[in-house]
Amino acid sequence: MRRSVQSCVHRLMVADFFTAVSVNNNLLMQPLRIGLIGLGTVGSGVLQLLNDEGERISHRAGRSIDVVRIAVRDPAKPRDVTVPGDLLTDDPFAVATDPDVDVVVELIGGLDPARPIVLAALEAGKDVVTANKALLCAEGPALFAAARAAGRCIAFEAAVAGGIPIVHVLGQAMAGNQVTAIEAILNGTSNFILSEMLQRGESYAHAVLKAQELGFAEADPAMDVDGTDAAQKLCLLAQLAFGTRTTPNQFPRHGIDTLDLTDLQYAHELGYAVKLLATAKLVDGLLEMHTQPTLIRHARPLAQVDGPFNMVALTGDAVGETWYSGQGAGQMPTASAVLSDLIDVAIGRAQMTFDRLDLWEDRPSVPVQPAEASIRRYYLRFPVEDRPHVIADITDILGRQSISLASVIQHEAPEVEANDPDDIAPVPLVIMTHRTREGQIRAAAAELNRLSTVRQPWVCMPVSG
Amino acid sequence: MRRSVQSCVHRLMVADFFTAVSVNNNLLMQPLRIGLIGLGTVGSGVLQLLNDEGERISHRAGRSIDVVRIAVRDPAKPRDVTVPGDLLTDDPFAVATDPDVDVVVELIGGLDPARPIVLAALEAGKDVVTANKALLCAEGPALFAAARAAGRCIAFEAAVAGGIPIVHVLGQAMAGNQVTAIEAILNGTSNFILSEMLQRGESYAHAVLKAQELGFAEADPAMDVDGTDAAQKLCLLAQLAFGTRTTPNQFPRHGIDTLDLTDLQYAHELGYAVKLLATAKLVDGLLEMHTQPTLIRHARPLAQVDGPFNMVALTGDAVGETWYSGQGAGQMPTASAVLSDLIDVAIGRAQMTFDRLDLWEDRPSVPVQPAEASIRRYYLRFPVEDRPHVIADITDILGRQSISLASVIQHEAPEVEANDPDDIAPVPLVIMTHRTREGQIRAAAAELNRLSTVRQPWVCMPVSG
Repeated sequence: MRRSVQSCVHRLMVADFFTAVSVNNNLLMQPLRIGLIGLGTVGSGVLQLLNDEGERISHRAGRSIDVVRIAVRDPAKPRDVTVPGDLLTDDPFAVATDPDVDVVVELIGGLDPARPIVLAALEAGKDVVTANKALLCAEGPALFAAARAAGRCIAFEAAVAGGIPIVHVLGQAMAGNQVTAIEAILNGTSNFILSEMLQRGESYAHAVLKAQELGFAEADPAMDVDGTDAAQKLCLLAQLAFGTRTTPNQFPRHGIDTLDLTDLQYAHELGYAVKLLATAKLVDGLLEMHTQPTLIRHARPLAQVDGPFNMVALTGDAVGETWYSGQGAGQMPTASAVLSDLIDVAIGRAQMTFDRLDLWEDRPSVPVQPAEASIRRYYLRFPVEDRPHVIADITDILGRQSISLASVIQHEAPEVEANDPDDIAPVPLVIMTHRTREGQIRAAAAELNRLSTVRQPWVCMPVSG
Repeated sequence: MRRSVQSCVHRLMVADFFTAVSVNNNLLMQPLRIGLIGLGTVGSGVLQLLNDEGERISHRAGRSIDVVRIAVRDPAKPRDVTVPGDLLTDDPFAVATDPDVDVVVELIGGLDPARPIVLAALEAGKDVVTANKALLCAEGPALFAAARAAGRCIAFEAAVAGGIPIVHVLGQAMAGNQVTAIEAILNGTSNFILSEMLQRGESYAHAVLKAQELGFAEADPAMDVDGTDAAQKLCLLAQLAFGTRTTPNQFPRHGIDTLDLTDLQYAHELGYAVKLLATAKLVDGLLEMHTQPTLIRHARPLAQVDGPFNMVALTGDAVGETWYSGQGAGQMPTASAVLSDLIDVAIGRAQMTFDRLDLWEDRPSVPVQPAEASIRRYYLRFPVEDRPHVIADITDILGRQSISLASVIQHEAPEVEANDPDDIAPVPLVIMTHRTREGQIRAAAAELNRLSTVRQPWVCMPVSG
């Protein structure tokens, strides 16, 4: 292995000497020295890739990429990955400010102490590579201003959609386009759970247990299943595509944690999959954003993404619609994204891209549309009492809000002998609306909640497209 | 529009003056001056994007991108796109060597005169952006050596899969991975024709006419439907992913031009779509490559790509399987790819990427596997005479070549009154094999061709996966 690096170096030297070829002789350059903060799942993956594939990666980077220091909570803890030499410390700030470190790779997640560590690294003149979507989403302006002030860059391919290189695509490959719409499945845990529920006819609770058994869900999956994780990732994509700074509390955000198998099955019968869909799109000069369970027609690529995968559907004014799919999380897919950032830093591409993207700068950008203004079709399911005039009551309320109906389905109630005529089992009434403003739906919902014949909870999900 | 460029420049100047911020002040730099060779569909698209979106594109590029000279066959011909000033000439070499041109964008296609034009441009010290897959495939070594000798770069995002940024993905975003497999639908014309045939029950000839009417096929679609176009693109992807130089005559290449609707329908019944699939994958240290109509299970993303779209399924050792899809051709998707290359050249990223990729260099690379050695499952359909012992004859030949059968389907022959007992209509015998070496299939084919009860042509297609 070592011989082939040397022969490569030799070849470059010969080329330099005998010809006027402008060969990039980075292999003769200093190594890029990495300070790694965090040696959990992703950190171990990064270290393992550098241990196992260092020569190939160095060739692509034009110089050696060496981990020179690693901060962990407990340096004595046994590790699956080989840690070269005596690199471990329990002081992340010592790594972040170490004069022998060129790039700080922050992989501990969360806001604290990640925020002061990243700021310390930037102030000490280090470039930063991070997978921390929560940090960028909450502290983007401060961190990117600090990076600009220090003349350094922040690279974050691993923060969104793991193995899908969507940050590269938005930041570089689609640079000739004005992005007009992003629709994305950004949370693999939620997508796995939804697939399990429908395919195996399982309840939400059972599917969560299964996801935990298989390692697709954390012990506490709250941030995944309540839509927070997907909404944070959407904020990063909206910043890249539209230059708009958003936080998850600025747009409707719902998770899959209140979904009922019944609705997945009704949607399926109607020709739709239900996905936790994160959307950011230009509508009349405003940015429509939301993250919520959404019906998507079976024929569309987003509807066909099953299991723990992610997909980003990206529309550009020149390129039209494009799709990117892969594993959105997991050790090696995320480590692969960190590595591509490190290679970009080693080559010098990351700094150029950072300079040109103006991320989280104070500049005019597309304003966010008020949630009430978004116009979509809706799926409604009401558990209603099987009494005269129930459908009339509901459709009357919808009609008065000018909500026009595309279809109404009420299956027959199962034949049961009711001992008590007041104890009537509810039957599902499923309505698909035509295109409707969210504001009309909200106004109707207030009235529908007052109908004594509609049991709670009734269900309302938007339809994409 | 102009005001906002000026305010942007102003903002950068203020930033430079009052702070130590390392702002990229490329907007104060010289424009990037483009010499455009060819003003056909893609060339007009590039010019139109620069006309309409120049300000936004300049912001992303950090400097203005100006078309300063354009070579066309007939400068007097009326054009759909506004050509600024008196830029037209009929002399492409004058553009390629013009001292006022920084980058030559070659969009005429074909080998001649594209080859001498690109060489002249490189020798004159220009960077080159091209969409010419045929040229790169045939002349890659000479062109890339010339670029290195001149210290310039060649960028070619538009040469493969139009709007899908697969060259960026392979060259940059997946740099941390060893790519292990590429399976791709790279010809939108063929994919449209296959979709039309199956969905509308149309013959190949009818579907071609439809594709021509809708602009998805050229008047002479030979290069698209015989697999040449897809094979050339595959060669470029194999060079990027594996460093291996190949030409389309080094691996099996079949098109869709001999396909029968019957086989699409049988495959569909069996649970497969038929796609013109281009494959390059590592198998035991060798590179297996082929471009041919292939059965793909319906559940796989590649099977779900219908109409004039492309998809690349890319597997990396770290990232696992990823998918990229979009329009593989067409004016604006391809122009978008050219623009992303121009922006990369303007920023300086393209040169860095070019230096690190070592494309078409004389270096050790993965050798191509002999075609006979590839191991796959196969779909076979024999039009056989409905006589005793026909199935036994065929399965005996297959068995003697150790080809093991997964399923055999023979539908009943339609009841017809045969006046002449020798005039028996053939009935289809459909066989799916287990995994088999291509060499075994070829040996069996030689024997099967000698069976008098098997009518010609009989059909053999591989199955992916």
